[in-house]
Amino acid sequence: MISVSILGAGNVATHLFKAFNKAENIVINQWYNRSLKAIEPYKNQVAITDDLSKLEEADVYILAVSDDAIKKISSKLPFTKRFIVHTSGGMIMHEMDKKNTRGVIYPLQSFSKDADVDFADVPICIEAENKPNYKLLNELAISLGSKCYKINSEQRNSLHLSAVFVNNFTNQLYRIAHEITEAKGVEFDILKPLIKETAKKIDALSPYRAQTGPAIRNDQKTIKKHLELLENEQHKDIYKLLTIAIQQTHGKKL
Amino acid sequence: MISVSILGAGNVATHLFKAFNKAENIVINQWYNRSLKAIEPYKNQVAITDDLSKLEEADVYILAVSDDAIKKISSKLPFTKRFIVHTSGGMIMHEMDKKNTRGVIYPLQSFSKDADVDFADVPICIEAENKPNYKLLNELAISLGSKCYKINSEQRNSLHLSAVFVNNFTNQLYRIAHEITEAKGVEFDILKPLIKETAKKIDALSPYRAQTGPAIRNDQKTIKKHLELLENEQHKDIYKLLTIAIQQTHGKKL
Repeated sequence: MISVSILGAGNVATHLFKAFNKAENIVINQWYNRSLKAIEPYKNQVAITDDLSKLEEADVYILAVSDDAIKKISSKLPFTKRFIVHTSGGMIMHEMDKKNTRGVIYPLQSFSKDADVDFADVPICIEAENKPNYKLLNELAISLGSKCYKINSEQRNSLHLSAVFVNNFTNQLYRIAHEITEAKGVEFDILKPLIKETAKKIDALSPYRAQTGPAIRNDQKTIKKHLELLENEQHKDIYKLLTIAIQQTHGKKL
Repeated sequence: MISVSILGAGNVATHLFKAFNKAENIVINQWYNRSLKAIEPYKNQVAITDDLSKLEEADVYILAVSDDAIKKISSKLPFTKRFIVHTSGGMIMHEMDKKNTRGVIYPLQSFSKDADVDFADVPICIEAENKPNYKLLNELAISLGSKCYKINSEQRNSLHLSAVFVNNFTNQLYRIAHEITEAKGVEFDILKPLIKETAKKIDALSPYRAQTGPAIRNDQKTIKKHLELLENEQHKDIYKLLTIAIQQTHGKKL
């Protein structure tokens, strides 16, 4: 049985709480937040507190707080030599105060406030300062049904950065397509099967091999036509830049 | 029963052949290609020919050929006043010779040569010059199990252009993430659940509402860190341009 205490009340904290609560060999000792209001709905399921000095012994303390708060809250902890982890993709492990033993569990997924999360679809990247702590985090991840990866701080940074490309930037491309189709009275829904297939295709092929379309074919006639169709200058810039990027990736003459 | 003849032997032609072949109320009269070699493997399933003058009567002739060949082949057809359609997203219906009645069936999906296609996941955009022909194309699409949309040439152009954003450009973002993670010895596979979730999320939310991340939060600290991490100048340019695009979409101060 692993005992955990959760600190913070954002999306990650809340989804971790729900998942730990369901897991067989995890017990949640306490849930801390600086304001009780956010965690009060859960007070029948777990001991809640807004007082760091009330934190009791646990196998691991999970600092699921904003990047800016990690350093500060790790310093304010009223104990030493216990095991603390943060959950951030963009922060190094050593961001936290060294009076405790440190680690990271970074769940690499996009969490929505309302939608339930199946942790089988959430890869968990772990980092620790010693073998027993790696083992503990690995067990924690496996108890959630997640795949677990040993990832150091530099690697985690590269994943966090990559997530911006495949999630935020990809979503912005969807948004642009929404604008383009809406302007002509076309349902954006027609594009959804293609969007899904694009995401699915890379299960079987690398993105390098999965590429198709006018850029990789260097189909200048279509590229010219598309640029003429685009009314928004920023959309044109994005079209040009990504077309060049595809052509350079695939060694086309420009 | 609808009788069709297919012209061309590319991906779209081949997938349409297989789907028509399975459909209950469609009969394939002939399959034409200028070289027999590509369609010879199917000669036990369908009458094949490389001679346009041998084309017999059919309810509809499907010109599933490259954009550049559509005009030429439509002129060379040795008959008039029959119903011909092309399958291209980027070509207007009137590209084809007016000696025949014209239409379009544009299957909006990414077809791979080897992978089988389930036409339930392929929206079919149809255009025709008269009601009976709309009805015929609609029946054809429904026989394949596809959703069918009435889309004019201008609208189809906007879908074709949008498909470049959500398919080719999105895939290039996946490629960039692959490069970034590989450079640090991280498995690209870790990102795949996030990629899938990003595509799935827009079933419930518009891309506008689904946006998250440092750009929309205007988290300058993270944006600066990411730009420092990016070693490739082109990746930096793409990061900057898409960050600005997200912020402008959401009305952030720059």
